[in-house]
Amino acid sequence: MLIVQKFGGSSVADAAKIMRVAGIIADTFCEGNDTVVILSAQGDTTDDLLEKAAEINPHPSKRELDVLLSTGEQISVALMSMALEKMGLPVVSLTGWQVQISTNFDYGNARIRSVSTERIRQELDKRRIVIITGFQGVNGMGDITTLGRGGSDTSAVAVAAALHADKCQIFTDVEGVFTADPRKVQGARKLDEITYDEMMELASLGAQVLHNRSVEMAKRYGVNLEVLSSYERKPGTKVKEVVKNVEQMKISGIAKDTNVARIAVVGVPDEPGVAFRLFRELASAKINVDVILQSIDRNGTNDISFTVSETDYDKAMEIVQERKDTLRYKELFGDKKVAKVSIVGAGMLSSSGVAATMFEALSEAKINIQMISTSEIKVSVLIDETSADRAVQVIHNKFFN
Amino acid sequence: MLIVQKFGGSSVADAAKIMRVAGIIADTFCEGNDTVVILSAQGDTTDDLLEKAAEINPHPSKRELDVLLSTGEQISVALMSMALEKMGLPVVSLTGWQVQISTNFDYGNARIRSVSTERIRQELDKRRIVIITGFQGVNGMGDITTLGRGGSDTSAVAVAAALHADKCQIFTDVEGVFTADPRKVQGARKLDEITYDEMMELASLGAQVLHNRSVEMAKRYGVNLEVLSSYERKPGTKVKEVVKNVEQMKISGIAKDTNVARIAVVGVPDEPGVAFRLFRELASAKINVDVILQSIDRNGTNDISFTVSETDYDKAMEIVQERKDTLRYKELFGDKKVAKVSIVGAGMLSSSGVAATMFEALSEAKINIQMISTSEIKVSVLIDETSADRAVQVIHNKFFN
Repeated sequence: MLIVQKFGGSSVADAAKIMRVAGIIADTFCEGNDTVVILSAQGDTTDDLLEKAAEINPHPSKRELDVLLSTGEQISVALMSMALEKMGLPVVSLTGWQVQISTNFDYGNARIRSVSTERIRQELDKRRIVIITGFQGVNGMGDITTLGRGGSDTSAVAVAAALHADKCQIFTDVEGVFTADPRKVQGARKLDEITYDEMMELASLGAQVLHNRSVEMAKRYGVNLEVLSSYERKPGTKVKEVVKNVEQMKISGIAKDTNVARIAVVGVPDEPGVAFRLFRELASAKINVDVILQSIDRNGTNDISFTVSETDYDKAMEIVQERKDTLRYKELFGDKKVAKVSIVGAGMLSSSGVAATMFEALSEAKINIQMISTSEIKVSVLIDETSADRAVQVIHNKFFN
Repeated sequence: MLIVQKFGGSSVADAAKIMRVAGIIADTFCEGNDTVVILSAQGDTTDDLLEKAAEINPHPSKRELDVLLSTGEQISVALMSMALEKMGLPVVSLTGWQVQISTNFDYGNARIRSVSTERIRQELDKRRIVIITGFQGVNGMGDITTLGRGGSDTSAVAVAAALHADKCQIFTDVEGVFTADPRKVQGARKLDEITYDEMMELASLGAQVLHNRSVEMAKRYGVNLEVLSSYERKPGTKVKEVVKNVEQMKISGIAKDTNVARIAVVGVPDEPGVAFRLFRELASAKINVDVILQSIDRNGTNDISFTVSETDYDKAMEIVQERKDTLRYKELFGDKKVAKVSIVGAGMLSSSGVAATMFEALSEAKINIQMISTSEIKVSVLIDETSADRAVQVIHNKFFN
């Protein structure tokens, strides 16, 4: 089998951790697999480099920042190769430009255009373990680029796709994907399998196991993903197109997002184009609007509620306030103390009453629902932030106990 | 003018030093020069990286060590570029592989084969300052190589040669090349000019201002070198093919080397091939032999004395001891407490009595000469190590006062 394995920064943070990860890689290789490994920068390296830069120039160009930061993964791959050499195994490290992981010119947040398999194949043909820098590529000018958040996951999936790897294993500090955050929710259980779509919904909802871009790419190229622990040697969660839902679970997981704020624009004239004007203004300021609720009251005016990320809240409020004359609303309310709790599951499509079960759990716990939004595989509710953890627990109890 | 400037690791050791060096570069650029800069890794970076490697594998492959160490210069060039960006200047950093500094495959001690000027010219044409990683290149496989000791000087000279630069300035922590070590010899003075050949003799004799390989390359390609201080803005020492020796000095400098040991093989049969066998054994153990003295005594046996570096002393003694049967000598003596003091000067060629003046100075100071070796531009004497500093001082007084 050809296996691509990815280890994050915390898995290679120091010499002892590197040696442990080398053990996992060695086992994979010694079982007879062609083994390709993608690594992130060691634990604090990126922060240390950013600090060095900040001392000199708080606003460096993104190009030079990429030159600086890309050294982090280069250090990781060299050290990991040395660890495997010490075990007497044949190994070679390669950087993004050596592999030719080609990206666009968007320094600091580049997108992968293509991955050349030539050099990797050459090294695999020599029966070498290939250790590749994650998070980085090279653009058409021959300049180093970095891929932005979750970049190493994306590197791993892109390399796996290019090599038509049999599987792509993403090692993390959790055992896999859980029905809810196991540190916070009693009874949270590990999923054996999950669909790409469910994984994407969970990822964007704050489950943070895998970056969305990587899951999206895995779905597009049909890469067999597996999320598993670099600490415990046991099966993780497989991410696939279709899963056998052995347990007949209606939902796969519950996620919570507290980086959310609600804005209510009250008493807007009930005329065509008002909502359009409002959301166009926000879009042009690059503010993402999530849940939208429009209600018509009896006096011929509308109330429009919507959510934005907490980070965008102040800017969004400012924009709406400045446009008071053109939007002609009566009152403006904002609330940062809200949270979005979502249930995700491909099973929803075929089984009715999933949303109702969720609302029942919240009602029994006397948690008030402020807004609701649904998609084919997701139901999200907006509730008071202080009730968020309790909400996740009671919903989890309802579905999984 | 097109100027290549090289700054060593101590000149870019921290943020404050980087800002000061950025000031020198900025001045050069703002005077209207095309400015290309070569940087070493920051002060302790290389040691830190070596330590990280040693924790994992005390004997890593040289290939992976080069992958690791080359990050050091990459960090330097990114940070320097950020410093110049902060001053509002147009700048771009380039690594060895981006420039295409092509080397052979000798990881850890690679030789430069060629330097492509394409990318550098492109950037200079855009009126950008170009900051290049010293010490590193890329081989025919597309692998990173490092150049070994003094590598950044060599990078600077190679880039200057390829670009036909008007000058190549090597910035160090001294003001230039001195007639003797100014920290130790009273009256040591800075030379305005020195020939390539003299510089090479001085470099190999421990003056340590410029690495020999870089001077050799500068001579071959006629690169106008200048050694100057990165702390004080004043002219340094120019290294050229022919110098105007304004002061009519007979010698250019005096150097001392204490990393030297003397071995005497006494009572060797006076037969052909004995010396050959001895030095072949040493050569095959990669031990460099420097000064050799053979004397014939009255009993038909020879005494052979020679010097090796102190580092090679134990190994050399062991080899000679092991070969006692084949070499058939009577006694073996060794002495690590010796030093080599040398005077260097192209002026020796045309003026007689230079060696005599040196011997006179030593004789007046009652310093015994153990061995003498001469070349066209150099006279070296082997003396007791404890007298070395005094010897340099008295010779200096004789020639320069």
